[in-house]
Amino acid sequence: MALRPLALAAAPSAACRTLAHRSPFAASSFAFSRSMSASSSSSASGSSYKPVLTRESINPHVLNVEYAVRGELSNRANKYADLIAEDKGKDLAFPSVVTANIGNPQQQPFLAQKPLTFWRQVAALTEYPDLLEDESGSLSSLFPSDARERAKAILEDVGSVGAYSHSKGAASIRKHVAEFIEERDGHPSDPELIYLTAGASGGVQTLLSVLISGPEVGVMIPIPQYPLYSAALAFNNAQAVRYDLDPHNDWAVDVKAMSESVDKARSEGVDVRAVVVINPGNPTGSCLSHENIQDILRMAHEKRLVVMADEVYQNNIYLPDSRPFISFKKVLRDFAKEGKTEADKRIAEEVEVISFHSISKGVSGECGRRGGYFELTNVDAKVEAEVYKMASVNLCPSIQGQIGVDLLVRPPRQGEPSYELYEKETSGIHATLKARSRKMREQFNKLPGVQCNEAQGALYLFPEITLPPKALEAAKKEDRLPDLYYCLRLLDATGICVVPGSGFGKMPGDKGECFLRTTVLAKETDEFVKRFGDFHNDFMKEFEA
Amino acid sequence: MALRPLALAAAPSAACRTLAHRSPFAASSFAFSRSMSASSSSSASGSSYKPVLTRESINPHVLNVEYAVRGELSNRANKYADLIAEDKGKDLAFPSVVTANIGNPQQQPFLAQKPLTFWRQVAALTEYPDLLEDESGSLSSLFPSDARERAKAILEDVGSVGAYSHSKGAASIRKHVAEFIEERDGHPSDPELIYLTAGASGGVQTLLSVLISGPEVGVMIPIPQYPLYSAALAFNNAQAVRYDLDPHNDWAVDVKAMSESVDKARSEGVDVRAVVVINPGNPTGSCLSHENIQDILRMAHEKRLVVMADEVYQNNIYLPDSRPFISFKKVLRDFAKEGKTEADKRIAEEVEVISFHSISKGVSGECGRRGGYFELTNVDAKVEAEVYKMASVNLCPSIQGQIGVDLLVRPPRQGEPSYELYEKETSGIHATLKARSRKMREQFNKLPGVQCNEAQGALYLFPEITLPPKALEAAKKEDRLPDLYYCLRLLDATGICVVPGSGFGKMPGDKGECFLRTTVLAKETDEFVKRFGDFHNDFMKEFEA
Repeated sequence: MALRPLALAAAPSAACRTLAHRSPFAASSFAFSRSMSASSSSSASGSSYKPVLTRESINPHVLNVEYAVRGELSNRANKYADLIAEDKGKDLAFPSVVTANIGNPQQQPFLAQKPLTFWRQVAALTEYPDLLEDESGSLSSLFPSDARERAKAILEDVGSVGAYSHSKGAASIRKHVAEFIEERDGHPSDPELIYLTAGASGGVQTLLSVLISGPEVGVMIPIPQYPLYSAALAFNNAQAVRYDLDPHNDWAVDVKAMSESVDKARSEGVDVRAVVVINPGNPTGSCLSHENIQDILRMAHEKRLVVMADEVYQNNIYLPDSRPFISFKKVLRDFAKEGKTEADKRIAEEVEVISFHSISKGVSGECGRRGGYFELTNVDAKVEAEVYKMASVNLCPSIQGQIGVDLLVRPPRQGEPSYELYEKETSGIHATLKARSRKMREQFNKLPGVQCNEAQGALYLFPEITLPPKALEAAKKEDRLPDLYYCLRLLDATGICVVPGSGFGKMPGDKGECFLRTTVLAKETDEFVKRFGDFHNDFMKEFEA
Repeated sequence: MALRPLALAAAPSAACRTLAHRSPFAASSFAFSRSMSASSSSSASGSSYKPVLTRESINPHVLNVEYAVRGELSNRANKYADLIAEDKGKDLAFPSVVTANIGNPQQQPFLAQKPLTFWRQVAALTEYPDLLEDESGSLSSLFPSDARERAKAILEDVGSVGAYSHSKGAASIRKHVAEFIEERDGHPSDPELIYLTAGASGGVQTLLSVLISGPEVGVMIPIPQYPLYSAALAFNNAQAVRYDLDPHNDWAVDVKAMSESVDKARSEGVDVRAVVVINPGNPTGSCLSHENIQDILRMAHEKRLVVMADEVYQNNIYLPDSRPFISFKKVLRDFAKEGKTEADKRIAEEVEVISFHSISKGVSGECGRRGGYFELTNVDAKVEAEVYKMASVNLCPSIQGQIGVDLLVRPPRQGEPSYELYEKETSGIHATLKARSRKMREQFNKLPGVQCNEAQGALYLFPEITLPPKALEAAKKEDRLPDLYYCLRLLDATGICVVPGSGFGKMPGDKGECFLRTTVLAKETDEFVKRFGDFHNDFMKEFEA
């Protein structure tokens, strides 16, 4: 597991850049393609056999699914990385690929966030309980007593990490999640309404598949949005009803406009049923204000909308005083507080809220473990029974993913042996992310034509880049959106892989306004911004009027 | 993790049995229900608010999903187990619940198959790589060199078990899967056509959702079948086209009848596209003969059907000489061998085969890890690109699940330090399963009205029980299928939870012929068969003419 240093090429020469730009991979044929030596034999045999499965015969809704985070750019980046790994990368304009397209903090070698020690100790002990038996030997120095106790308590409930658990997830872990929510929000939480999932994505897909009863159903999604939502809606053949976030007002939700777009969609026959809110925002990095959340819940009540609150970045907060994370569940239940009106109390008891959390983000960044949960609030018991049934068909989420959720919601407490190290590691990660986010933003804002908001939360920056007219023409010639064109050029020239705004539904403007999302995870931030800046300056010069 | 012994009650007295039978849980209200204190408040508030999500509004195909393995019986069993755990079980007729309804070998306390040491060592080392650093200390005795080397090699590829991998799964692990398939079948396998999945179930669901383009699409499933298939077809709103397995001919596939039912369904407008074959059989335990597999492939070619080969029990073989496991891929590619006709060679190159494997079964029994894979053979490249895209939306299967696949396909080899222990553990599990399967079958066949085939593979027995007319009447009075009635009575009287044949689509016959599936995993086989036998004898006496 040797970590290669991020060796940087000098700013690519014009010749080199041209070479990279004329990359051997024609983009159009590269999207999700591969060599098919073993499977494309049917046409070669001279037989008239027609395969059962063709693009024309399969589920048409699958064809409509788009997933920009892992699409053309990511595939091309993988191909470059493979070439470099095979020592065939000498014609490339860069020595290494930097995957800033996915929030995957532990990815080696360029992000390489170190896993939290307590997490991994408990994981190892539950994997191999023999390690628990050496009470006095040298292992006790490797495994502090609270890690051992946690592992024992988990095994007491699940038996073995190799056994299926309850389909909703292990009972003790769901209980701990409920306690975590109660402590966070100051309102009760019922473990029976908490479902452990394979990351938040698994839960979102299950819930959407239950909610969508036909092609007339619509779900509101923010623009820009995380593309899981548009992908899941396309797959389930439902309609995405868009609502815009305002880049000039910290990407806040304009609830009045939202409400109007519900009316408009309904007048056009769309059965708008739910609204997805991502808070803290992905890709925007905004944290919704208390007032904004209240307004969304009032609107959801008035319009009868289920609120799907994607709160997976709730631990990634950069301005805890001015822009803290506030959960939808808390604001919902606060409507029932003493002194509220009867109408407000009804909101607390009636708006159906489904909130999602994950172990993949935060400071744990344990994406590969696939753990998360959702909580159902005010959902009809008979519907909940159907959700339970669907969870049963999927058997259970992975036990190590479930254990991750336990560790997320029950970190070591003050006075416990692991507390000090845990505190040091987590505050270090928080500080690093904050510093990187700030530095990258500062550098972006120094580049010509680039404007980048401050991230209040999450793991991304979402700068706006205004491209010159000649660049727009060059993109048009290649039949590409200008933001994708820019990002492909960036990748070809620097090895940096980011995602164009259009991948999140934020389309380029008439005057060349483009967006892109980059994670703030690259270990070598200085070198990242230098590579990026050098490319950008060259690009702007190339296309200056 | 203390293991409670399987303490058995004496055969329940009539009073006790009646008590248990009049269980506090009315079966109909118990299916997937629970107390809804926190969520059923909308009706209580006196408001006219109508929840968005109701049984009437949600996806109707979700309502049609049935999943007997974790349905009413399993829920009642869980409730009994909870009562016993809370010391409230004194009115029950049994001291403990035995979950023989799910193939979950490591479940505590009554199955408790010990995990394979090599697997868990590698898992622990990859979780907590600090353990790799103590080269000379006491840890080297705990972790043999081959476990360390394996862990290092895996980490070299995936970086961290907390990072997302390639959406298809880690490249090195897919390469090992391809090598395993090549060694098993004697034919090439392409790592790019192998997808690692969250158990086999995840792969089956993805593939069916791609294959099914509308409600006219049909997929052939065996009767009896594993209910994942009927559940996924109901969810995707497609048609299950049944083909019967013959209990009086080792549950073989009658290919002529299968072919006729394709024609019949097609004549009725069903677009039959695929045939699911479960080999070794679940719940039947049969291993298909080479000839039977050949015939199925010929038929699939003639009728243009995709073959979905569920081969998750390929390591659970009880009669390796007379009834070995033979993979569909091998038989398919054998059609291209020298000396075959041109027509045969076309079969090898044209029939679309998707084969599934899993780490949950076999001798690893690592269900909770959620690992598996599928291999695509003769699938169109453009369709494969769509499968890849759908895998991307799901990000990646859990890394520990992927590592499980690596361990499944690359066990320690002779001469390596872990070989001896691994061999001892795996042959012990094989022998235990075989002995239990044989003993349980013998005992079943001694009971009045019970006839049980020998299991050639998998983890189950599927005995036929002919119920007396008065029992059928009693079931009818409760508006239940007789096999479910029998299984509920069995659970109420003994705590043993099994699944009625109707849960697998094998409906009771006119003359009271019922089936049930039990796993052969219960640690205390003697006590299991005694509890079961005592109940059965009492039951038959209760209803004798």
